[in-house]
Amino acid sequence: MKRAVFLVLNKYADWEGGYLSSQLNKDSEWMVKTASIAHEVTSIGGFTTKVDYQIEEIPNDIDLLVLIGGDAWQVEEVKLVELIQARLNSGKFVAAICGSVDYLARNGLLDGYKHTGNAQYLWRKYINYHNDVDYIDKQAVVDKNLVTANGTAALEFTNLVLKMIKFTSDEQVDKMTDLYELGFYNYCERYGDPFH
Amino acid sequence: MKRAVFLVLNKYADWEGGYLSSQLNKDSEWMVKTASIAHEVTSIGGFTTKVDYQIEEIPNDIDLLVLIGGDAWQVEEVKLVELIQARLNSGKFVAAICGSVDYLARNGLLDGYKHTGNAQYLWRKYINYHNDVDYIDKQAVVDKNLVTANGTAALEFTNLVLKMIKFTSDEQVDKMTDLYELGFYNYCERYGDPFH
Repeated sequence: MKRAVFLVLNKYADWEGGYLSSQLNKDSEWMVKTASIAHEVTSIGGFTTKVDYQIEEIPNDIDLLVLIGGDAWQVEEVKLVELIQARLNSGKFVAAICGSVDYLARNGLLDGYKHTGNAQYLWRKYINYHNDVDYIDKQAVVDKNLVTANGTAALEFTNLVLKMIKFTSDEQVDKMTDLYELGFYNYCERYGDPFH
Repeated sequence: MKRAVFLVLNKYADWEGGYLSSQLNKDSEWMVKTASIAHEVTSIGGFTTKVDYQIEEIPNDIDLLVLIGGDAWQVEEVKLVELIQARLNSGKFVAAICGSVDYLARNGLLDGYKHTGNAQYLWRKYINYHNDVDYIDKQAVVDKNLVTANGTAALEFTNLVLKMIKFTSDEQVDKMTDLYELGFYNYCERYGDPFH
């Protein structure tokens, strides 16, 4: 069984992880767990999530770490920086969206990766952000073992993460995300009814 | 303070309520609470939600009841049917998406409302579903105090619910949902940068 851990802080963004977590967790080969720096966190939308792991409890051999955005990524968490750095250095998969990409930029964790984020001008004050030439104006960007995305890109983020981890064929991933991107009726016109 | 209650069952659909709950709960005039038939439920995506209310604890004077879809709407819950029926009869706002619309159809709660859902053929066996002529092939439908939507229509659902409850002007609601529908870059081309 492959494992994905979704890291959520207080005031996490409800809409950013839902497509990805559901696609992964309903697959028989994948399992989703949650992690945080507290035992319970409440989303921007008011949902209280009881998390499965504290940061130090996240198993080393998980297959994907997903950092969900939100309004609390000003945190200082040495353990978390070390965890992400170690995963990136060893080629393990990391995916970050919205506020969590700000956190990567602030802690110098985007070095060596083409990336995107909510907006680069927010990072001008970050002394550890060295590679502004690698910023790409796109909804989501994949480079090697890292996907980054802005907070309006939940589906593009899902699409690139599923392709990065070789969840299924790229064609199947595109169809899966198109169902939500186009909506049921437009999807049926393009591909036929997915439920018949 | 206005209150919205999101009803979630086990295996609820993570992606369906995130846009709506976050828009409501970050507004200073609205507050979001969760409710269920258990104290904790786990989403399709593996997120464990600790809910605020059991069904009988939902205050009578809430301003919006949102039924989130998922894989467990086969439940029989007399209290829930009564709650929804009472709200509909008295003109109070109800919003239902995906599997929860199946529940409304099965319990005869769509009578008198134009509506949509995941697929009407699923409801042929429901002896309490009487108004198949009122089914509309659209992503989401609003009629009087009820919004219904299919499970690929999280943003259209959000758009119609926010308009139904007069959350802000229709134009502002359209801009807000367009930010996520179009994505940041296409949105900026149409409306200008929302953060400057």
